[in-house]
Amino acid sequence: MNQPYLKKATLAEAQARWFGALERAGWFAPKTEVVPVRQAVGRVTAKDVLARRAVPHLRAAAMDGIALRAEATAGARIDRPLALKAGRDYVRVDTGDPLSDEADAVVKLEDLDFPEANTCELRKATFPGQYVRPVGEDFPEGGTVLGAHRLVAPEAVAACLAAGVFELEVLVLPKVLIIPTGSELGDPQNLSPNAYPETNGALFEGYLRRWQAVPTLHPLLPDDEGAIREAVEAGLESHDAVLVGAGTSKGREDFTTRVLARFGEVLVHGVSMHPGHPVVLGVASGKPVMGVPGYPVATWVTLDQFVLPLLERFYSCPLQPRHTVRGTLAKTVHASLGEVEFVRVRLEHTDQGLRIHPLAGKASALSSLIRADGILEVPSELGGIAAGETVEVRLFWP
Amino acid sequence: MNQPYLKKATLAEAQARWFGALERAGWFAPKTEVVPVRQAVGRVTAKDVLARRAVPHLRAAAMDGIALRAEATAGARIDRPLALKAGRDYVRVDTGDPLSDEADAVVKLEDLDFPEANTCELRKATFPGQYVRPVGEDFPEGGTVLGAHRLVAPEAVAACLAAGVFELEVLVLPKVLIIPTGSELGDPQNLSPNAYPETNGALFEGYLRRWQAVPTLHPLLPDDEGAIREAVEAGLESHDAVLVGAGTSKGREDFTTRVLARFGEVLVHGVSMHPGHPVVLGVASGKPVMGVPGYPVATWVTLDQFVLPLLERFYSCPLQPRHTVRGTLAKTVHASLGEVEFVRVRLEHTDQGLRIHPLAGKASALSSLIRADGILEVPSELGGIAAGETVEVRLFWP
Repeated sequence: MNQPYLKKATLAEAQARWFGALERAGWFAPKTEVVPVRQAVGRVTAKDVLARRAVPHLRAAAMDGIALRAEATAGARIDRPLALKAGRDYVRVDTGDPLSDEADAVVKLEDLDFPEANTCELRKATFPGQYVRPVGEDFPEGGTVLGAHRLVAPEAVAACLAAGVFELEVLVLPKVLIIPTGSELGDPQNLSPNAYPETNGALFEGYLRRWQAVPTLHPLLPDDEGAIREAVEAGLESHDAVLVGAGTSKGREDFTTRVLARFGEVLVHGVSMHPGHPVVLGVASGKPVMGVPGYPVATWVTLDQFVLPLLERFYSCPLQPRHTVRGTLAKTVHASLGEVEFVRVRLEHTDQGLRIHPLAGKASALSSLIRADGILEVPSELGGIAAGETVEVRLFWP
Repeated sequence: MNQPYLKKATLAEAQARWFGALERAGWFAPKTEVVPVRQAVGRVTAKDVLARRAVPHLRAAAMDGIALRAEATAGARIDRPLALKAGRDYVRVDTGDPLSDEADAVVKLEDLDFPEANTCELRKATFPGQYVRPVGEDFPEGGTVLGAHRLVAPEAVAACLAAGVFELEVLVLPKVLIIPTGSELGDPQNLSPNAYPETNGALFEGYLRRWQAVPTLHPLLPDDEGAIREAVEAGLESHDAVLVGAGTSKGREDFTTRVLARFGEVLVHGVSMHPGHPVVLGVASGKPVMGVPGYPVATWVTLDQFVLPLLERFYSCPLQPRHTVRGTLAKTVHASLGEVEFVRVRLEHTDQGLRIHPLAGKASALSSLIRADGILEVPSELGGIAAGETVEVRLFWP
């Protein structure tokens, strides 16, 4: 009556098996497109971006002052100021002004006196190149402005514009179909009496967008194997990846595995982690397919442990910071031996340093995600971590 | 001929003076709008968001198994299994299924035998509430789903949908006009021979969008005081803040201060920091106006030190993570006493720990921003920091 779990994989095994199969299927082969550079913020470069012109492409004054030939200042001394004539000997320039071919140095205003109009005096000789910004100082022509597989930040757009690069070859945004399933679920805004609101779709959509994927949210499907099969089949035609929400527990509605198996290979059913252990990972038509557990925190862990690394591997680029802090665990946490436990925690800054408070809340508790500052991973070799131990916490950023 | 600087303010003085004046002008008074919750990711809540229905709003099975009245299991023992009849004694349920009014407990599949159809045996009595997810376990009706002044994350959207909240009151996105100026500048894509590409507009646009503001990029203006005046005047009508790019040095083209002074009060001209010291801060028509230095790194520092805190104060909410790491400075950095120095640095992870490499590059070097992993602040009391010292670095995230 109930399908038994396939033997559970460890987290590392599950990732390696899934990513390995997708690698062999060619899913990580870069697919690129060209976009105007001003619209490229947040996209990922497909190759090194080379300067088409030097930055700066003109020699420029690096200070406000006068531009001249350095040799014209020979003999100026503190006790014997040298007088120069505008036009004949120098030109007034401001920071950033391009220099004429004749000028090879800039003397800054602070070092000058202007006893009368069009005349200035200086008390120190200068040298060629003084306060001159040379061509290509920032980026030489042909030099690398931004490496391959980098997220495009605003300063990279500015540098590209400066370097004459107006279009960027970037990796395409993978299109991901999300299929929420569950006869017990309904539209949150139009809920029938005995139904629960379907809310994981919003979790998927938000994180996929943040991680540079384009989500499509399929209408909610009941636990109808035929309907789910059709949706997955159509999704594999039109999308780069298909995620099926819920339907992965040991219960009667365990269709996901059968459906995914019909179109491809199920590589993993069950991962020794908590929350999120009933995750199903497969490859169909050369594309990632996934059955995602329905409890919100389990969904979140699955996104964090499989979808984010999938997309980071696709882009060969980190898509989210993984900053950590260390602190003292305020309360003992228990975990199952042989299973990685993901504990949501709050941070408290005290005079004795950082204290880490595990948050109560089951895998069903969205509140524990919202209130958390970060996540503590209890390794599978440990049955828990005692209060007072020093632990490392990965920080969230909303 | 040249306006002298107003006395330079310290960074803290400059921020306090500007924010104080804007506070008195009422600029930080919350302005709100209502948006569909599914479109609210990244927005900032205006007030506490309260649950309109409990989450969950129905009692539910917390495991796959059978739902029943706990008293029906009385007498079951390991050596004397109790047989129950489907329909009469129990109903098969899966995780998440709502419970009927009669049921008050769930027994999980692992604890059951099914000797024949519609019959099960259990070997242990259960108690009321066992594996029952109570109403409001995650959020009670009327409870706080998300506090005021919080960035809306995908999990908050999911929680709102669950809690019957379909619209959110959020703070409006401030509209910011950016006016790039400089007769020496031109359109990067259509550059005349002696002009430099205008690129700071892209820096402004990118960061303002990231920080939940709506930027408008004005066409580049020459150093024409009348034209800049008109643009600022129109901008103060149509926008919530006006930033004038460049034109803040001691040079001839120093119009920004005069223009801003015409429409309001210039509070700060010159801040003891580097890069970025010639920044101009004012209030006009009750709105922030700012003259931003033209060197890209100076522009970046000004955004980071004034525009980001301005918007964070507007939202009463952090808009960007400020994660720090500590490491050993690999090379002595020099700084001017009395000036905060912002040094771009690269991190190197070594067997001896984290090494911090200051990056060469003047305030004009976009390359130093692109290559940097973070920023090291040399306090104004120090004339530098010696190689080998332990320093704290604020990390970038592209």
